[in-house]
Amino acid sequence: MGINNGTGQQHPKIFLSGSIRGGRQLLEIYRLMYDSLEEAGADVLSWHVADPGLEENESKMTEQEIYARDIGLLTKSDALIAEVTVPSIGVGYEICRALVRKIPVLCLHRPEAAVSAMVLGNPDPSLEVRTYSDKVALKEIIVEFALAL
Amino acid sequence: MGINNGTGQQHPKIFLSGSIRGGRQLLEIYRLMYDSLEEAGADVLSWHVADPGLEENESKMTEQEIYARDIGLLTKSDALIAEVTVPSIGVGYEICRALVRKIPVLCLHRPEAAVSAMVLGNPDPSLEVRTYSDKVALKEIIVEFALAL
Repeated sequence: MGINNGTGQQHPKIFLSGSIRGGRQLLEIYRLMYDSLEEAGADVLSWHVADPGLEENESKMTEQEIYARDIGLLTKSDALIAEVTVPSIGVGYEICRALVRKIPVLCLHRPEAAVSAMVLGNPDPSLEVRTYSDKVALKEIIVEFALAL
Repeated sequence: MGINNGTGQQHPKIFLSGSIRGGRQLLEIYRLMYDSLEEAGADVLSWHVADPGLEENESKMTEQEIYARDIGLLTKSDALIAEVTVPSIGVGYEICRALVRKIPVLCLHRPEAAVSAMVLGNPDPSLEVRTYSDKVALKEIIVEFALAL
């Protein structure tokens, strides 16, 4: 079964949110999320989050250009998927902006992460929070979410 | 000149935003911010951010209770002051919520901090971003901001 399963959208547009200046230690996980979503037929608009060359590319942009690009992509997205294990002001900001837009938001984290109460205690019905123990589980959760859009 | 300077509010309500689960390494700075604001006559609603006993107190609360308390206080605040040096999903979320409410937001950081483009490149007219080099400068900036409310 592909993403075009008769009930969902053919190519849902996903904003993938992960830490950039908060730390790139989970870059490999963002890459796996990007690859899994694209493989399942989704269109990850914020592909740069999973790009190992991001810092170099963004060093040629102004802060205003980076902000405008990210918010522009978020505005075009059908859903946001955020990895919230690594603390990041940008990720928190983007989760809020997506909830204001009333698009579905999926937050994922490792079991040992100290995740913000702004995520864990948030009663917004558009928000889903899931723990993943390994890469197989992570892939399964995000592909299932994208298929249901 | 006190906070009651004839043009501003007598006791502006401030939401102080700082990292909790993202890391407490700047607790002393949050404490200085809290003390300076209270001394200047402002009312810091989110005093718990500067509380060394926070973790113990919050361990008795559910995630939903912590979220409801923080968003409730933010809703009552006249302005938000965020220290954005330490990456934090909660701080990013709260900055966005305050901007959605259209209240003044002041973000402060140390010169060496890698601050999110969601803050540095954000064109929202309610948002002001300032660097501080030492405690004296920090105190001066936040008291001036509170006096102008």
